[in-house]
Amino acid sequence: MTLLGMDLGGTKLAVALFDEEGNPLLKEHIALGDRGGGEAGELIAGSLRALLDSEKYGTIGSIGIAVPGIYHAGNGRVWAPNIPGWEDYPLLDEVRKISRQTPVVIDSDRACYILGESWRGKAQGCRDVIYMAIGTGIGAGIMTAGNVLRGANDIAGAIGWMALKKPYSDAYVSCGCFEHYASGEGIVRTALMVLQAMEGYTGGLRDIPPGELSSREVFAAYFNDDPVAQEVLRLCIEFWGMAAANLVSLFNPEKIIFGGGLFGPATPLIPDIGREAAKWAQPISMQQVSFESSALGNDAGVFGAAFLALKNSGLNHSL
Amino acid sequence: MTLLGMDLGGTKLAVALFDEEGNPLLKEHIALGDRGGGEAGELIAGSLRALLDSEKYGTIGSIGIAVPGIYHAGNGRVWAPNIPGWEDYPLLDEVRKISRQTPVVIDSDRACYILGESWRGKAQGCRDVIYMAIGTGIGAGIMTAGNVLRGANDIAGAIGWMALKKPYSDAYVSCGCFEHYASGEGIVRTALMVLQAMEGYTGGLRDIPPGELSSREVFAAYFNDDPVAQEVLRLCIEFWGMAAANLVSLFNPEKIIFGGGLFGPATPLIPDIGREAAKWAQPISMQQVSFESSALGNDAGVFGAAFLALKNSGLNHSL
Repeated sequence: MTLLGMDLGGTKLAVALFDEEGNPLLKEHIALGDRGGGEAGELIAGSLRALLDSEKYGTIGSIGIAVPGIYHAGNGRVWAPNIPGWEDYPLLDEVRKISRQTPVVIDSDRACYILGESWRGKAQGCRDVIYMAIGTGIGAGIMTAGNVLRGANDIAGAIGWMALKKPYSDAYVSCGCFEHYASGEGIVRTALMVLQAMEGYTGGLRDIPPGELSSREVFAAYFNDDPVAQEVLRLCIEFWGMAAANLVSLFNPEKIIFGGGLFGPATPLIPDIGREAAKWAQPISMQQVSFESSALGNDAGVFGAAFLALKNSGLNHSL
Repeated sequence: MTLLGMDLGGTKLAVALFDEEGNPLLKEHIALGDRGGGEAGELIAGSLRALLDSEKYGTIGSIGIAVPGIYHAGNGRVWAPNIPGWEDYPLLDEVRKISRQTPVVIDSDRACYILGESWRGKAQGCRDVIYMAIGTGIGAGIMTAGNVLRGANDIAGAIGWMALKKPYSDAYVSCGCFEHYASGEGIVRTALMVLQAMEGYTGGLRDIPPGELSSREVFAAYFNDDPVAQEVLRLCIEFWGMAAANLVSLFNPEKIIFGGGLFGPATPLIPDIGREAAKWAQPISMQQVSFESSALGNDAGVFGAAFLALKNSGLNHSL
């Protein structure tokens, strides 16, 4: 049986086919462009139709879909703040029109990240393990005692809202304190502030128009010993370390896995993040945890979606 | 069948007998004094022996014990930092010498607090709910999807170590940032600092020798509009609100229950804590949670221990 995993992001739809052992047979990315509402749904439906019609990789026996927001299992609807018109989108109904008898399961991208790492990544064999997804936004997939933490209404793991720096500032209102400082956009915000404040700076970041600066340039400058970038990432390491420390103290996990768009380029900083976390965290829990980079990178979502598809197919499986 | 719940704290042993419905038949407190090591164990054993020998409240059919630290279910040993000589105390073996055929179960006080509230307190009917115990120290009993969160090695819920105020200070090394500022001892520490810094203060806290000041006096002064106490508790409300907000964003719980020695006197401040938390927390999760005071107060531990005893007795039960 072939498994189909789809991972809808804010900018693209990632699609992959796997065998039952989790070996990838096909991977592709489709740009979302400015699609929203029914058009974004039609992108998923069209890709699904083409894959179901093709027998090139065997018969697709089960489908899993990761969505960037909240999936309400009770009514099959999705809230995805970064996709226009998806405040309450009936994704399950739309997909079922195409999938017909093939089973479909939908879950949040955060849940899929940690399930993907559990199936075929760094979380294999772990029962208490956390995936910190740090990119444009920040969220976490949290597994406790072998199950994904969901909370009362499937919104658990909103770590971007972690309070780390008092007093409260109105700047945190739209995304939360931790995400404000330490997401991809946070890095750019901080870089512009540090650029303005650092006197006598003659480095290259000065020459990039503020509207065009991205975290990519900040990382490149950091690894070239640029003093602005050093200061920006020193602050980020402090926030990432504090946030990871809080997860260690609260959850006593075996591993924290760093993923998302910034890990990526921030992967060499993980030992520094570990040193910062060790200052703050419950010391016995800190000795029991390891900080690692994602094994699956941008594919964690499709792996997790396919693993959900496998579980939902009725075949025997275990993590 | 009569259930016996015991809750060992840093200063006293609380003991209670219950019927199977959770109605208390007897409650008593025994001061721990400066007992440590085997003497603390003998205090438990002696109380147990007397209760098992007496038939006044029916035959004791099952025993539960809450301990202030970590219980290692694998070997029956306890790590309790506030009881001298209990780095690795063989409590289960010692208790079994007395209990003989009567089943015994041991768990951490944090787990017992939330189980007690689930059985007969404010957490009845909740599957995702957190008990914040704020007293001399700070910890949390966390229930997710109906189960107590334990972590990889039974140390989950160490919320006193939460990082809330950057940069790191060496003052946090022994107890963690949150506990440093917002525990009972933290209130005294902060009060002494504010007293020193506030010019022209003529209130009553000035007249208490620093070694004799306790959080009790600070609360009394607060409710008499004392400006030092107002400032101290303003800071505490900020920390308590941030910490509760982080639990809301991470766990998406139905309720957070405030207990421990300070709730108690800080109970009227819970609405202020809610307002502070609402600034920081994931906004949808914040709408779904309620902040409440413990229904069981200092008895949460014995209720939880007795509920564990009930579960361990083999009788049918449900939360």
